[in-house]
Amino acid sequence: MGDLAAEPGLGGTVRLYDVDEEAARANQAVGRTLAGRKGVVGRWEYQAVPSLAQALDGADVVILSILPGPFEAMAIDVHTPEKWGIWQTVGDTVGPGGIMRALRAIPAYQLLGREISRLCPQAWVVNYTNPMTVCTRTLSAVFPGIRAWGCCHEVFGTQELLAEVAAQAFGVAPPPRQEIAVNVLGINHFTWINRASWRGHDLFPVYREFALAHRDTGWKDKHQEQAPAPYFVCNHRVKFDLFLRYGWIAAAGDRHLAEFCPPWYLSEARSAQDWGFDRTPVSWRMADAAAKRERSRRIIAGHEALNLGPSSEEGVAQLKALLGLGTLTTNVNLPNEGQVPNLPAGAIVETNACFRATEIVPTLAGPLADPILALVLPHAVRQEALVKAVIARDRDAVFSIFASDPQVPLGLNHSRGLFDSMLKALAPWLPTDF
Amino acid sequence: MGDLAAEPGLGGTVRLYDVDEEAARANQAVGRTLAGRKGVVGRWEYQAVPSLAQALDGADVVILSILPGPFEAMAIDVHTPEKWGIWQTVGDTVGPGGIMRALRAIPAYQLLGREISRLCPQAWVVNYTNPMTVCTRTLSAVFPGIRAWGCCHEVFGTQELLAEVAAQAFGVAPPPRQEIAVNVLGINHFTWINRASWRGHDLFPVYREFALAHRDTGWKDKHQEQAPAPYFVCNHRVKFDLFLRYGWIAAAGDRHLAEFCPPWYLSEARSAQDWGFDRTPVSWRMADAAAKRERSRRIIAGHEALNLGPSSEEGVAQLKALLGLGTLTTNVNLPNEGQVPNLPAGAIVETNACFRATEIVPTLAGPLADPILALVLPHAVRQEALVKAVIARDRDAVFSIFASDPQVPLGLNHSRGLFDSMLKALAPWLPTDF
Amino acid sequence: MGDLAAEPGLGGTVRLYDVDEEAARANQAVGRTLAGRKGVVGRWEYQAVPSLAQALDGADVVILSILPGPFEAMAIDVHTPEKWGIWQTVGDTVGPGGIMRALRAIPAYQLLGREISRLCPQAWVVNYTNPMTVCTRTLSAVFPGIRAWGCCHEVFGTQELLAEVAAQAFGVAPPPRQEIAVNVLGINHFTWINRASWRGHDLFPVYREFALAHRDTGWKDKHQEQAPAPYFVCNHRVKFDLFLRYGWIAAAGDRHLAEFCPPWYLSEARSAQDWGFDRTPVSWRMADAAAKRERSRRIIAGHEALNLGPSSEEGVAQLKALLGLGTLTTNVNLPNEGQVPNLPAGAIVETNACFRATEIVPTLAGPLADPILALVLPHAVRQEALVKAVIARDRDAVFSIFASDPQVPLGLNHSRGLFDSMLKALAPWLPTDF
Amino acid sequence: MGDLAAEPGLGGTVRLYDVDEEAARANQAVGRTLAGRKGVVGRWEYQAVPSLAQALDGADVVILSILPGPFEAMAIDVHTPEKWGIWQTVGDTVGPGGIMRALRAIPAYQLLGREISRLCPQAWVVNYTNPMTVCTRTLSAVFPGIRAWGCCHEVFGTQELLAEVAAQAFGVAPPPRQEIAVNVLGINHFTWINRASWRGHDLFPVYREFALAHRDTGWKDKHQEQAPAPYFVCNHRVKFDLFLRYGWIAAAGDRHLAEFCPPWYLSEARSAQDWGFDRTPVSWRMADAAAKRERSRRIIAGHEALNLGPSSEEGVAQLKALLGLGTLTTNVNLPNEGQVPNLPAGAIVETNACFRATEIVPTLAGPLADPILALVLPHAVRQEALVKAVIARDRDAVFSIFASDPQVPLGLNHSRGLFDSMLKALAPWLPTDF
Repeated sequence: MGDLAAEPGLGGTVRLYDVDEEAARANQAVGRTLAGRKGVVGRWEYQAVPSLAQALDGADVVILSILPGPFEAMAIDVHTPEKWGIWQTVGDTVGPGGIMRALRAIPAYQLLGREISRLCPQAWVVNYTNPMTVCTRTLSAVFPGIRAWGCCHEVFGTQELLAEVAAQAFGVAPPPRQEIAVNVLGINHFTWINRASWRGHDLFPVYREFALAHRDTGWKDKHQEQAPAPYFVCNHRVKFDLFLRYGWIAAAGDRHLAEFCPPWYLSEARSAQDWGFDRTPVSWRMADAAAKRERSRRIIAGHEALNLGPSSEEGVAQLKALLGLGTLTTNVNLPNEGQVPNLPAGAIVETNACFRATEIVPTLAGPLADPILALVLPHAVRQEALVKAVIARDRDAVFSIFASDPQVPLGLNHSRGLFDSMLKALAPWLPTDF
Repeated sequence: MGDLAAEPGLGGTVRLYDVDEEAARANQAVGRTLAGRKGVVGRWEYQAVPSLAQALDGADVVILSILPGPFEAMAIDVHTPEKWGIWQTVGDTVGPGGIMRALRAIPAYQLLGREISRLCPQAWVVNYTNPMTVCTRTLSAVFPGIRAWGCCHEVFGTQELLAEVAAQAFGVAPPPRQEIAVNVLGINHFTWINRASWRGHDLFPVYREFALAHRDTGWKDKHQEQAPAPYFVCNHRVKFDLFLRYGWIAAAGDRHLAEFCPPWYLSEARSAQDWGFDRTPVSWRMADAAAKRERSRRIIAGHEALNLGPSSEEGVAQLKALLGLGTLTTNVNLPNEGQVPNLPAGAIVETNACFRATEIVPTLAGPLADPILALVLPHAVRQEALVKAVIARDRDAVFSIFASDPQVPLGLNHSRGLFDSMLKALAPWLPTDF
Repeated sequence: MGDLAAEPGLGGTVRLYDVDEEAARANQAVGRTLAGRKGVVGRWEYQAVPSLAQALDGADVVILSILPGPFEAMAIDVHTPEKWGIWQTVGDTVGPGGIMRALRAIPAYQLLGREISRLCPQAWVVNYTNPMTVCTRTLSAVFPGIRAWGCCHEVFGTQELLAEVAAQAFGVAPPPRQEIAVNVLGINHFTWINRASWRGHDLFPVYREFALAHRDTGWKDKHQEQAPAPYFVCNHRVKFDLFLRYGWIAAAGDRHLAEFCPPWYLSEARSAQDWGFDRTPVSWRMADAAAKRERSRRIIAGHEALNLGPSSEEGVAQLKALLGLGTLTTNVNLPNEGQVPNLPAGAIVETNACFRATEIVPTLAGPLADPILALVLPHAVRQEALVKAVIARDRDAVFSIFASDPQVPLGLNHSRGLFDSMLKALAPWLPTDF
Repeated sequence: MGDLAAEPGLGGTVRLYDVDEEAARANQAVGRTLAGRKGVVGRWEYQAVPSLAQALDGADVVILSILPGPFEAMAIDVHTPEKWGIWQTVGDTVGPGGIMRALRAIPAYQLLGREISRLCPQAWVVNYTNPMTVCTRTLSAVFPGIRAWGCCHEVFGTQELLAEVAAQAFGVAPPPRQEIAVNVLGINHFTWINRASWRGHDLFPVYREFALAHRDTGWKDKHQEQAPAPYFVCNHRVKFDLFLRYGWIAAAGDRHLAEFCPPWYLSEARSAQDWGFDRTPVSWRMADAAAKRERSRRIIAGHEALNLGPSSEEGVAQLKALLGLGTLTTNVNLPNEGQVPNLPAGAIVETNACFRATEIVPTLAGPLADPILALVLPHAVRQEALVKAVIARDRDAVFSIFASDPQVPLGLNHSRGLFDSMLKALAPWLPTDF
């Protein structure tokens, strides 16, 4: 809402739909507080609607951002595997937690894809929900003609780190992250950078020095102080370790990167802390959500003003470009048509793309280097298989994927035990035909 | 020189090398007339050098633009096949003329590729020489790491036609061609556009109306009046005919397009005129070259001022972007890494690419539509084979390609007769080991 | 029937279905004359059935061999284009005749594919109908899981020619064609051989000598005397000419090969005869069919015995291998899973395959040589596009394919004229929704 | 020697070359004891030669079987990682041991490839050395035109297990393994079977029952009694476990399979025994080799007769087929030209191939199923990278591969520690330029 309010070139109607109607209405109320406020230059009408069909019918743009199941379910995703000695930092992308979350998210995205196909097939569709890759992939699997992409701000954080590195190396103030030109390739939350420059200066040599200097102690950037909780600390030691292993820059927070790797950073309960980051307990998320709901109430009641500062997301800038107001090259998640030729065709990959009037065209990011490919590809293959398996409601196929995730280094019987116990606990939120 | 002179952001030394040393010195003299002139804001030193090695040694940028053999050779390329009933409009790209020209150009580009590899392997290398595809491909075949691309203004002309179409359709003055957003895919001189818009308006429906209205009479654009000779007239009837056959916009002058097609536009001596364009006699090129040399002399002598208006080329804008001064998305010729997935990997294809600091990254243009693929692919396959065959100095392999070009619809004996008689006449300019 | 009768290892029931019920009953009667005859060792019950569903229901093997429309339609396919100066030798594969035949055959094969999918999805399905490629492709397009392949004896004829070449070269009696080991790759009726040996002797050098010796006069093999009519003469001059152009052996009769090529062999009415083969008039086919029906009547009436000699087809040997009775490597038409990596995935290609218990596995034939690829690929691309276009009943897409066939070297208006006049004349046999 | 002696159709000269000249002479002496013996029908002259060049010069067939470095080196490969808690069963294929062995084998195979290219470029080249994949790949990397393949008997053992399964299921005596038709796909020692039949009977349902019945207790086949030492016991529990995970049959001994997997079967010192197989100590190999040398001496001295029974290898049958004596379809290791389309092009893959006069043509095995691909592909990618890295003598690239092997689940510092300590201990046998 803040980004829309600050953008003079756009206007229109935002229909708000939520499975919790009350929440949609609260958002409507928040949105309406903006009209007439100083600094609000975008003209938007906010309107809560009671059904998905009403939200989608004839829409030009669809923005998807859901929680697949309540935090009670996420608590099972994240914490049940701890009883089997599996320690997840986020638990929403891969690993036992990511797979269980996908079991809830994919059916929801099947419905979304079908309804978009029926009600607004030409709409631009932006996805913000995790697991980003499988949600976005479900849309293109269900409705191959969909004009959808996925947005994630993790790469931006790495650009900011590189801006800091550039600042130190060249004795300047940290440039805005948009000045850090990077070639991005990989899959969401396990994305890599193989070229980075600032104003024509290659940043790889200086990043190497920086990584060597901070490999053991880590680097606490300014975001650390702003982190909403200690659980979001990231001092980049995983990133530096991966750079020293492979020579490319891993471009996501350490909490995400760790979950894709062999048992290097999360094999024991205290590994994360040893590496300078932390596992986020779902109890914190619950408390945080309650606080946000309370804040929303206060805003509606006029006891608190909505902060209009820019978000860290780029969705509004992207829409502007698609509507013909300038061009933008940035990293997004799109089906692989060859932009990363050694990842599977059709899989959702994260690379740069050019946004301009009426089109999003990915750039040719090129192949992943061999040893990195060996890390990334199994995840991409499993994600492709997972979408297929969940769409087919094929429990055996899902288990076979679950049991070969690197975060499930268990014997077959234990894998089965964990799988079954998670499914049982999560049964209220699973599709009935699964 | 005009484009460099007009650009405030760049400066440096231009080394001029020509196999005709006199010509290089004349260019040096021309270049030096610019210093101090009003409107000249770029600071460049022009310096003729006596050897290729001196020109290349440590260069940051290499600009290649040669005539592969004298016009006497080109006269054989173009006019000898007329005795066999083969009527070429340009004769420098495909067909008997294009193949013979390639026999002279590829060895020259082998040398260039090797010397660049040795003397300035990191240089940006721009090629302007035809046959564009095989020259650029020779560079990447000889030196796979080369940072080379090929530039051609033919697509720009089609953008200008589309600007005119947009102007008529929307009742505005013709916008600058840069506002016409096109997705470009194919091979040089046989390039296609499958998406075109102006400020978000799809131009395909209005182009269809335009093509239907002008299919029989053609459309004479403003360039026709500026054409250097009647032989360069193009009233776009071939373009409209191809659009009505295939539904995509062919993006080159009719004189080039016709040479790639089955015997639709050039089967008889008068076909070109029937279709509203013309074959360019090499005698005209000879006279034109003499006139240009004379003009150069007059400029050096101070009897004529060098016209500093912008050229229709984009090279300088591209270099600016590569040096970090802004970004540019435009169509260029690059090795296919998947930007056109149904053309051969490694072949030189023409698509859009993003130029920005330190890199040129092609965008994913996507596959050619099936029936267009059936037209384009044989040419791409033959061009790949031709580069291999000439590098191997394999006369039989070259003949086999020659005899299956659509402009050689002859029996085997006649094909051989034409081939041998062209080779005999061109012997002075062929590599001695061929 | 003769092949089944002669095979001791197999037996069962043959259900005969024909859109002309009378014909099916005649075939039943013919089949039943065999029981008890000397030399008949296979035990088969022949049974005419009145519906396709009855024929297919639970079948283990399905043999498809139809005439797509009556000879009256084929007469239009073949002879109407003659008024536009287009001379077809067979007119059943590519070119105007092949495309029109495909307009009748593809809808029939859509029905067959759907019914097989419904009634006998596990059946082995052999196709003998032309156009072979598009019929077989329609089956796999409609029912991707179908176990279908296409059989054609054209390559066998080339093996026999090679046997003759081997005999002359090595001073032996012509070996059986099965001893000529060939690597086969291409598309049906435009298939190529790039390796050929007999008992370990490379046949390419001796074939080159043979082709050089007979390029002008042709070679009349023993089949010429047995040809059913002068229109079937083939003295291999096209084959030799193609070998001398490309260095690979074209493996089909000259009448078929000529139709795939640029205007080398069929550009004028008398070209075929000049090249030592002939165009087959459909009137001959009509007379021949009448004679065959008469012979069938005489056999049923007991006035003539059914000749039990082996056919030139391999279907029975293939079925034996699939049932576990030995193995067989031979050339068949199958969807391309990579056996010819530079032809489109999924297109029907002709290569060797291993038949053995429960499976047909193609061997990796390898890529077509570049200049041959330039000839074959446009046809493969058009065939793929044609199947899609006819399934979609998309008349414009069919025309766009039609107008770019090398046998339609006409301007757009003339192409349209021919296309429309053929469609008009063929209207009685076209799908009503086209 | 036994296989050659028993084959009536072949004869010639065998040149024996060994870096240990004495060993070659001993083999020569052994071979010569055969002449004139009863049952010896192949006529072979055995001849020790003092140089590799003499062995290769003009050879028709080259058989490669070496130990890359002495058992002292192999002891380091296998046992040094035990100090880091890494337990290898064989240690010759992947993991720390396989990588170190590759560091010795690849340079040796570079020499072999170069010498074969120079002295017998047309020879058929059979490789038996491990690491099979990287040795065979080195040959094709160094000499792309080489006619080389790799042979391994591991799949045969799985066919024998399937023969036993068939026997139990169908109440017959175990058929010979050649009757078990299997489709083979994967990489050596991590090969998979996705179709298996005996006389047309699908073996997958009965194998599933068998696996379920024996998953916990294992199945001791007749080979167990013949095992040369307890360390070679394999009761197939890993195979059954993998089948129950993925639904395909893993086709190698459990000792090999375990080394490719996540930490399921080898994570602790006693895991192998828990799973019913064992780690082979190199001390046993040393003793065994000494015993074999002693036996060789006894044979030469006439104190013991050479056992002429058939080996379990197929090399002689393959050579017969290549020479035109019949055909053979069997599984071998060849560069991937598409036989397994989702493994990297050019990588050595194991699939069926047709051997016949003058050619080995792989059959199209098809893609690996997704979750199996996720296991196999990282190994294939690493093996490709390893060959490149060792040829380039790039120590950092080798380390990066080493540190991401699933058998090296260590932090970066520990990985580096192990790597460096292995390199140090193995220094005497490493190339001096590494």
